[in-house]
Amino acid sequence: MLWERAREPHAHRWSLPGGGLGADEDVEASIRRQLAEKVDVRQLSHVEQLAVFSAPTRVPGPRVVATAFLGLVPSDTDPVVPSDTAWHPVDALPPTAFDHEAIIKRARHRLAAKLSYTNLGFALAPPSFTISALRSLYSAALGYKVSATNLQRVLSRRGLLEPTGGVAPVGPSGGRPAALFRFVSGEMRVTDPFAVLRPPAGRSLGM
Amino acid sequence: MLWERAREPHAHRWSLPGGGLGADEDVEASIRRQLAEKVDVRQLSHVEQLAVFSAPTRVPGPRVVATAFLGLVPSDTDPVVPSDTAWHPVDALPPTAFDHEAIIKRARHRLAAKLSYTNLGFALAPPSFTISALRSLYSAALGYKVSATNLQRVLSRRGLLEPTGGVAPVGPSGGRPAALFRFVSGEMRVTDPFAVLRPPAGRSLGM
Repeated sequence: MLWERAREPHAHRWSLPGGGLGADEDVEASIRRQLAEKVDVRQLSHVEQLAVFSAPTRVPGPRVVATAFLGLVPSDTDPVVPSDTAWHPVDALPPTAFDHEAIIKRARHRLAAKLSYTNLGFALAPPSFTISALRSLYSAALGYKVSATNLQRVLSRRGLLEPTGGVAPVGPSGGRPAALFRFVSGEMRVTDPFAVLRPPAGRSLGM
Repeated sequence: MLWERAREPHAHRWSLPGGGLGADEDVEASIRRQLAEKVDVRQLSHVEQLAVFSAPTRVPGPRVVATAFLGLVPSDTDPVVPSDTAWHPVDALPPTAFDHEAIIKRARHRLAAKLSYTNLGFALAPPSFTISALRSLYSAALGYKVSATNLQRVLSRRGLLEPTGGVAPVGPSGGRPAALFRFVSGEMRVTDPFAVLRPPAGRSLGM
């Protein structure tokens, strides 16, 4: 999600939502506040610090150090965005401001990596979905097509995915109704850590 | 590695090495410079941004936002540290300054998590080592004992560890000489990403 800058610097280029850190907030409170106030994004399914971008000349004028976040919303979210704001495919970005393309690429890289060893797909998917819809989400996030059969197999085998028992409505073209699935958990975890390194009972490892 | 503060604020409490961002450097260049200049740590086997610590009152006086890094050195590294600086076990910290204990705990958590799904042990180990020595390193990093047999099995099976062909010198008490091992790679990678999500040839996923 990007907004088009009306004024210099970098007029008519597209920026990530964000802004200055307020005196009474930390960086995560700040980005959540600004997403809610500026672009009506209030229900993030996953938020994590991505990286600090701090090259001395990344922005013209007085020095600005940015803390970038990866924030995900389920694919069925449709916030009421301002008229200067729009969603863009990561693989077809408009001209971007400052180092925001590098930030977006880093975020995409992080997302793709985490999809390959965690259950993070839960943060992109609606509450229930067909395997075909899930495959589209994974393919979009990764930037290349994955096999629906293999995706279902690997996610099910690792206990991440379960059938809801329901089926999707049959479309106008008819055909067999597709089974609906959901993610078992809505909290990110590594799907296959070395069992030998698991902590004793009562302790847990996160990210 | 911590240094004891001589002056207020938080005199006689222990701080992580670090300092102000210079006008001509980014945050990673800054922490590498400060580690080299202040505590003689020049050969980091792994460096990654950990998180931004930005609570409004984390430090007395004017606001300070910190970018914290996880930096690892091999266990046989012995830098010439200043007289106010010393290594401390993470599980037995002296009184720490500001929010540095929270930073250390976060770093330890990150390290423990990454040891469970990457080859990051390479960054803690010397060039060659016995399984018994490696087990001590993993146990110290994780905060609980792991089995040497299981550790060797899981790291070997995933292709992370290989025998050097050599053996360790026999100690004064005699016994059978122990085989020496090394890590296959000195670059961090996820050890078992979902194969179905692997990118097409020629593209790679990192962290």
